[in-house]
Parts: sequence; structure tokens; C-alpha cells
Amino acid sequence: MRLDKMAQSMGVPETHFHPFGPGRAKIDPRYLETFSPPSFGREPSPLYVLVTGMTPTPLGEGKTTTSIGLSMALNRLGTRTVVTIRQPSMGPVFGIKGGGAGGGKSTIEPSDVLNLHLTGDVHAVGAAHNLLASAIDNEIHHGNRLEINPLTVGWPRVVDLNDRALRKVIVGLGGAANGSPRETRFDITVSSEVMAILALSTSYGDLIDRLGDIGFGLSRDGRLLKARDLEVEGAMAAVLREGFWPNLMSTSEGTPAIVHGSPFANIAHGNSSIIGDWVGLSGSDCVVTEAGFGADLGGEKFFDIKCRALGRGPDVAVLVATAKSLRMHGGLADTVAGRPIPEILDKSDVPSVRQGMQNLLRQISNVRRFHVPVVVAINAHPGDSPEEWNVIRDLSMEGGAEDAIVCTHFRDGGAGALELAERVREVCRLKKASYRPLYPDDLPVEEKIRTVAREMYGARDVTFSPKAKKSLADIERYGAAGFPVCIAKTWASLSHDPSQKGAPSDFLFPVEEIRYATGARFVTAIAGDIQTMPGLPSRPAYRRIRLTSGGNVEGVS
Amino acid sequence: MRLDKMAQSMGVPETHFHPFGPGRAKIDPRYLETFSPPSFGREPSPLYVLVTGMTPTPLGEGKTTTSIGLSMALNRLGTRTVVTIRQPSMGPVFGIKGGGAGGGKSTIEPSDVLNLHLTGDVHAVGAAHNLLASAIDNEIHHGNRLEINPLTVGWPRVVDLNDRALRKVIVGLGGAANGSPRETRFDITVSSEVMAILALSTSYGDLIDRLGDIGFGLSRDGRLLKARDLEVEGAMAAVLREGFWPNLMSTSEGTPAIVHGSPFANIAHGNSSIIGDWVGLSGSDCVVTEAGFGADLGGEKFFDIKCRALGRGPDVAVLVATAKSLRMHGGLADTVAGRPIPEILDKSDVPSVRQGMQNLLRQISNVRRFHVPVVVAINAHPGDSPEEWNVIRDLSMEGGAEDAIVCTHFRDGGAGALELAERVREVCRLKKASYRPLYPDDLPVEEKIRTVAREMYGARDVTFSPKAKKSLADIERYGAAGFPVCIAKTWASLSHDPSQKGAPSDFLFPVEEIRYATGARFVTAIAGDIQTMPGLPSRPAYRRIRLTSGGNVEGVS
Repeated sequence: MRLDKMAQSMGVPETHFHPFGPGRAKIDPRYLETFSPPSFGREPSPLYVLVTGMTPTPLGEGKTTTSIGLSMALNRLGTRTVVTIRQPSMGPVFGIKGGGAGGGKSTIEPSDVLNLHLTGDVHAVGAAHNLLASAIDNEIHHGNRLEINPLTVGWPRVVDLNDRALRKVIVGLGGAANGSPRETRFDITVSSEVMAILALSTSYGDLIDRLGDIGFGLSRDGRLLKARDLEVEGAMAAVLREGFWPNLMSTSEGTPAIVHGSPFANIAHGNSSIIGDWVGLSGSDCVVTEAGFGADLGGEKFFDIKCRALGRGPDVAVLVATAKSLRMHGGLADTVAGRPIPEILDKSDVPSVRQGMQNLLRQISNVRRFHVPVVVAINAHPGDSPEEWNVIRDLSMEGGAEDAIVCTHFRDGGAGALELAERVREVCRLKKASYRPLYPDDLPVEEKIRTVAREMYGARDVTFSPKAKKSLADIERYGAAGFPVCIAKTWASLSHDPSQKGAPSDFLFPVEEIRYATGARFVTAIAGDIQTMPGLPSRPAYRRIRLTSGGNVEGVS
Repeated sequence: MRLDKMAQSMGVPETHFHPFGPGRAKIDPRYLETFSPPSFGREPSPLYVLVTGMTPTPLGEGKTTTSIGLSMALNRLGTRTVVTIRQPSMGPVFGIKGGGAGGGKSTIEPSDVLNLHLTGDVHAVGAAHNLLASAIDNEIHHGNRLEINPLTVGWPRVVDLNDRALRKVIVGLGGAANGSPRETRFDITVSSEVMAILALSTSYGDLIDRLGDIGFGLSRDGRLLKARDLEVEGAMAAVLREGFWPNLMSTSEGTPAIVHGSPFANIAHGNSSIIGDWVGLSGSDCVVTEAGFGADLGGEKFFDIKCRALGRGPDVAVLVATAKSLRMHGGLADTVAGRPIPEILDKSDVPSVRQGMQNLLRQISNVRRFHVPVVVAINAHPGDSPEEWNVIRDLSMEGGAEDAIVCTHFRDGGAGALELAERVREVCRLKKASYRPLYPDDLPVEEKIRTVAREMYGARDVTFSPKAKKSLADIERYGAAGFPVCIAKTWASLSHDPSQKGAPSDFLFPVEEIRYATGARFVTAIAGDIQTMPGLPSRPAYRRIRLTSGGNVEGVS
């Protein structure tokens, strides 16, 4: 379907549909008149489906592919469905991971456009972010009427690339004309609080307020200083004017995909934008949205951060798993960065799948703590055996899943996810979800962290470093007592230790640092070494990417 | 006129016209089949008009406004005309200067879109540039098989903002995992060699070659290392795939404007893209293009760098002047940064205009050295007197201009530049330009620099610092003997000293540094303190910029 027809079918007025280059468009959301969750004024209320996953492995479980395949299958069944996903960062595209356009016969097209710039939203976020950074140093340089204490400035600069040399830098060298020397860092753009804000805002007014609320440091007498104090939030919002418009693209079967927002799933909340989901919910029967990393990370943040701001929860959660990744969680073999994936992982191995199911079972119970039913999607691989699938299905259903369905959408497109789609519709109809966040707003932040660590990760308790404790004492100053928490930990384990596969328990979860995102309105608790600026590998993907002299991109998918 | 109709009238196939958001589109230039200057296969050959100017002042002479107004007037006269200008950088938009969309009734619309991102080309250039920077440090980090000597790496990083704290930085701090500490700098994106390459390339093949040719440093044994050695030029080109497509917008009178490329006019060559001009020349009767800063800077580089690559010169040059700026060059009053402009400059003062004409006369003779006829455009201001205009006209014509025409396009739009347009057409018809660059390709680079300094700037001779002399000895290593020179000096004077107004002479022009742009294929000679990363002022423009809650940008024009 052409994008304009697609938008029309979603109730987008012609005046609010704007092509932004071949294969992509933006929807100016100002035709949406009132923010009225949970049904957004619709009867029957549109279905809302979360796609989340087991604890990820370097093998790839196919969460994006499943989100796309499921949405295409639902459309085949006559349920008008929009899939909403995050926009990929260019960093991993040139690094190691490849793109974020799905795979096989379940993709978003054109994939090179999706993976390179798309419509420039990430660049716009970077420009808004760096404008604040420049304004801070400019204020210090020009008399510092705000009395910024330079040692307290926590606002980094950003770039949408992997660049390890920028992790720790000294700026302002070269004499007085260049400002004052100061140690700071560059993060990758998608980890910026501005990206989280873009993804969480429900209107321009909300966006402007949140940008103004960004706290960048303290004054010499200890007051929290905000972007508003520099009178820069208006210009930041102007830079983001069109970045706030959700991007519309097409799946490989011509159904609608909204690609908007790309916050990290550790340091930020890891979910596509609220405004994108709202556009989808307002103009379709169903929105399928994907959360980053496992159900303990992007999934938990979907429920505790995004759904809080969106004002509703999902009707069902689809948990993506593969036999191959379960084999790895079950201890069959491990991967080593830079080495080929052990071939043994490609072959059926029922005992290790059974062992690895500990991980999936914990993630099933994690989702169920939000009072939402779970359907497991078994993303089939050629080496899988029916015995493995039976183990996964039986144990999943014992563990509280409604069902576990084998899908072949990678090979077969939407046709390979029809059974999953039918089951998802059925569960929505029969099992009334009664979404509830994990903790109430008024629980002390320390207890919020403890609740997530215990109930999601399986920790015995949480330890707070002296630095974290000191920061926690500042909650009132940041006005953060009522904020949800956003825990930054490894994606590779339910615990804070990436080597712990399966379902670790009885460990102490070490919170080393607390940061306040006063614009995004969450408290970030950092456990372990969270890299906010990835590096490039020794054999970087950029070497394989080229433009032909005819103007076609090769090596990006 | 709607942009799609506009493109159609320019012979752009429907398949190669792509809207990129409200009020802007891109033209995929792959329908242009052969690069065949000077007439690009057309009969009669399309007219090609350069708009350049007297030595600029902080008062603003209205070069962009005149380019737009003249193009609208030509269209009114039935000459189908496209205006081609550079895209503004966001740095000055948030700093002090305001935007680059023209002014009064001669503008490009929507001006906020033009001034903020447009279609993201500058961001794409920044990403391609920074990808190379990251690849360099990554190579050093991962074994350095290329034997890069880190002390010779001259490739900075870039950001499209004014940010003085980034002028000199140390990167790679924080231990071995973050690479090796190294002193480097950030420039503003538009000063990047990648931007110059984008603006000079005639095809994807040319773009890829030039990117591969970028020299970023030397090996331990003194070999020049290029982007190609890192196998990164293909990914850089992929990032620039759509950035290479010229942007189409509309003037305030609905005539076509191509806005593409934004190289600096000191450190780079300061002219809009060749591919944009080619699209214009292929589909209209006339292209009016603007060069940055005065005729000695962007003008000279237009002739010696852009026209060399384009394969043709202009039929006529329009030299923009104002009585007000001539009063200042004549010594009536000077401006001081951060202080209001002296009111005395607003009132007619024939003696100081007569004195200031020295500047305009030098610029007239500068353009005539390229064997191109000159028409002076007197951009009228309310305080001007007819006596002043008479002085300007009489002296201009004595000095070799074909005419000097008073224009009121700022107040009246195209109607205010009809006489100028008529005169421009007439000169094209009657005076055959015979464009010739200032120096031959095979003149030694040192002599090329000397030729420009003597013949354009009025210098008695050129001095080379020891550092510059040392670099000049490396010409063969850089394969740069046949390159044109790109001289970076202040825009505020014909000399290297911004305080020297009028037409200084008998001075020594001090070249302090030589850089080789092996991808852009020019040799940059730096004289004086050329800032490649501007700072923000004490009362930055971003404070006045805001987004309304209804989603409209205010304070950008």
C-alpha cells in the first residue's frame, strides 16, 4: 500500500501527512485532539500488544522480526494493525550489530533508509542536546550569572556514532577565549535524556515543559539548575519540531509501521514513542509495539515508565524466545566476542533447552506481575526439533503463559505468524488484562529500585554504593520522589553480571550511581559498567558498507 | 507554484522528485545523463549569473536577498530562472547572525525550515565526517596495522553548532579501553572537507573517489594515509546518499530555489553545490547563484575552484553594495561587537560613500580579472540619497562595471529588481564573457597563493611562516601540485587584517599554515586567526527562539 493511502486508512487527514523522502513519511499529530487513554475515545477499544523477550543473547532472538511478522499476520486476519518500533541508531550499524529493520521476510522497507538517518530525528535530538551543552559552557564563559558550579555539570555532549575516544574528554582547552577546561564525556545520541523526552511527550506543550525541566547541574549554593534557567528550552523544542512527528514506513507486506523514538533500554527506557503509539491506537484496531532488550529491561520499563505516561497498559504481551538462545542460557555453549558462534548451538539439544527455560520462565512471571497475559512466540530456526518446542510449550504453560506458538515469519512473512496472531486475538478477547505497574508512585525511590531488583531480576537485596547513597539523599532537591525508576544494567543477564545466564538468584544487586532525569521524569539507577558510548570493533561493519556509483547502498540491512 | 509542478517545469522526471517534508523536496539527479559543460547540451546555452559582493560588514549588504530578488525579477520578465544558494548552518542561527533565508519580500520559504535542519544534509555531512574520525581512532586502538602516527592526525570532529569549548580538546582519556589520549579539535560541520566534497562532486562516482582521497594523517614512515586505507569511504558515501540530492524550495514569489551544500567561504570554497547548479542549468533559462562573503573570498573561489570543477564560468557577475556599508568602508563610523550600530551610518553621507568606493572598485576589478562583465546592484536603504547612488553609479562605471542599478527587492520583491534583471539579461546578450581562472593549474602552489594575494587582495607580497614553508615542501606527497588554492582569511577586509577597511594596499600577506584537502582537491592557505568553531555571544539568539505549544517556531527567520 502507498504510504498516503496507509495514512488515510489510519484516519490521518491529508493535511497532516507529509512524505519525507522515498519510502517514508511523517504524520503531524496535531489532528489528535484529546489525550484520552485508555481507549482514546474509541469503541471498541483498540488492542495494544507488547512484544518483549527472554534475556537476549548475541545469537539474536528476532524480537523486531516477530513484532513485524505478528503485525503482518494480524493484518492478514483482518485486524487492522500498526507495528511501532524504535528507530535504529547509526552507531551499531557501522559497528557490529547490523540494522534494526527486522529480517528475512518480516522487515521494514527500505531497510537502508531505516538504518541510515531515516528522517533525521536522531540528528535533531543530538542537535537539541548539544545546544544545551554549548549553552551551559557559554553561560560559564560569559560571566556565569547563574553561578553554575562547573564540577557539578553532568550534561554530556552526544554523537550518533560509536566512538570510544569520546568517552572521556577534556574540553575548553587552549586559553581563556575557548572557555574553562572541564572534564566531560560524549554519549551516543540515543542515550540522551532528550531522546527519552521525545519518546515520552504527549504534546508540544509537554515536550517544552520536559525540556525546560532538564537538570544539568547545581549552582554554587546547591540549587538544581535547569535548561529553563538558560532560556534554551524553546530553541531546543524548535529544533525538535518535526522530530516529534511519528515516522510512517511500510512492512515488507505493505502494512503500516511507525518508527519513532530510540531511547536506550538501559540508561533510558527503551521504548518507541508514546505519540507514535497514540497515532496508531487512534487509527487502527491494534498496535503491536516492541520493547528493547529482555522483559526485565525494556519490558519492565514499558510497564513502569511508558505505560504510566501513556495512561494504559497492553492487552497481552508476546514473549519471544528461540530454542537456540535457550540452549545457550542452558549452558550448552557460550559466545565470545570476536569469535564465531559455536556450531553446537545450531543443533537440537533438549536437555539444555530445558535447563535454559529457567530464563524464559522468569521472564514469563516478570510480565505476569503486571497483570497482563503472556503468549510465548517460539521463533523457529532450521536446527530446532519438535521435542524442543514441546518442552518450551509445556514448561511455558506450566509457568503461566497462555500458550507458546511456533512461528516461521522469518521464512514465511505474515503467513508464518498466523497462529500466533490468532492466539493473540483470542487471549485479548478471553483474558481481560488488568495492567498495574510494579510499584506505586509514592513508594520511596530506594524501595522502587529494590522492588524491581527483587521481583524482576531475582536479587536477594540491593546494595547502594556510598556515591549512590549520597545521590539518593538529594531526591527532594530534584523533585524526583514520585518518579519511576529506570535501572541501567547489562542486557545479557537477569542479574547485573553478564556472565550469569539462565535465572540467577540470591545475589546482591549493586547500585553504583543514581542520576536524575528531571525532564524525562525518571530516576536512573546504574548497576555495573554501563557503556553509554559504544566502541567500534576490530572488524567494523563500515568496511562492508558501500555506495555503488549508481547510488545504491550495499551492506546495510 | 507547487514544488512538484516546479520540478516538472525544470524537466525533472516525476520519479526523481521527492518531497522531504512541508515546503521542501529533493531532486534525485540521476536523470542527468552526461556532464557536458558549458552548455549542458542545451541550445541556447542557459545563462549563469554569479551574485557576489563588496567586502561585507556587520550591517549586512543583502547578497542572499539580492540573489533571490533578482531571480524573481528574471522570472517576472519571462526568463525561467532558478536561484541556487547555500544551506545555512545552525550555528549562527542560535548565535548572533540570524538565518540565511533572505529578507523582506525576497525570501525563501518556509524560512524556519531552511534555517533548522532543512532535509538534514548538514547532519549527514557531520555523520560521515565523524565516522572517519572514529575509524581513525579505532584503527589506532585495534593494533594500528596502518601505522598511523597519531601526532599527525589532522582530521577533527565536527558539530553543527557554535561551541567554543570544543575548539581544543583531549580525547581518549580514561584508560586503555577508551583508546589513547590525543589532542584534537571540533570544527563546525560546514567547515568540513566532506561538505566541500559534497558541494564539488559531479556524480556518486566522483563523490566516492573524493571521499576515499581524503588525507587524514601520515604513517610512521611518512606516507599520506587516506580514508580509503581505512575502507571507510563507502560507508561515508552511503551516509551521504541522499544528502547529495539537491534541495528544492520556493522563493516568496513561488519561483524555484535550490538550496544545497554549505561550505565555509574561508577554510572551504564557500559556494553552493555543483550538482544543484547543474540541475538548475539543465532545466531553466538561467541560474542565479550566490558566493559567500566578498568577491575576494567566495567570489574568487567561485571562479578558481567551483567553475574549474563545473567546467564553465558565469555570463555576468552582480556585485552587491549598499551606501550604508560604503559609508562604513569610507570611515564614517565603525561597529563594535556587542554594541548597537552607530546611527550615523543610517544617514546619507556622500563624502564617505565616495571614500568607501575604493572597496567596491577593487572588487569590480577583482571580478573583471576573470574576464566576466560586472553589474553593480545597489541594494537601497531608506536613509540613502540619490546623490550617493549617483556617486556609486558613476564611479562603478568608470571602474569598469557595465552599470550600477538601484534595487528595492527587499521592500518590493521581484518588482524591485526588474531594472537589474533587464540589465543582467542585456549584458549577457551584448557582452560575451570569456571566463578564465586567475592562474593556470600548473603554476606552483606558492605562486598561486601569491597571485591571489596580489591581484585580489592588493598585497605587495606574501610571507610564509616556517610552518607553512615546511608544509609547502610536502606538496608532492599530497599530490597537490595541480590543485587550486583556497585562502582562508578574514571576510571583513580585503587584507588579512579585519580592521583595514576600504582597499588596503602595499601590505605583506602572512600565510601561517598550509593544509591539503586531497578529497576536495584544493590547498588551503590560512592567514590570520581563522575560527573554524565559532562561539556563542553573551546574548545568544537561542534565547529568543521558541516553539509555541501549537507547534510554530518563533524567532527564526
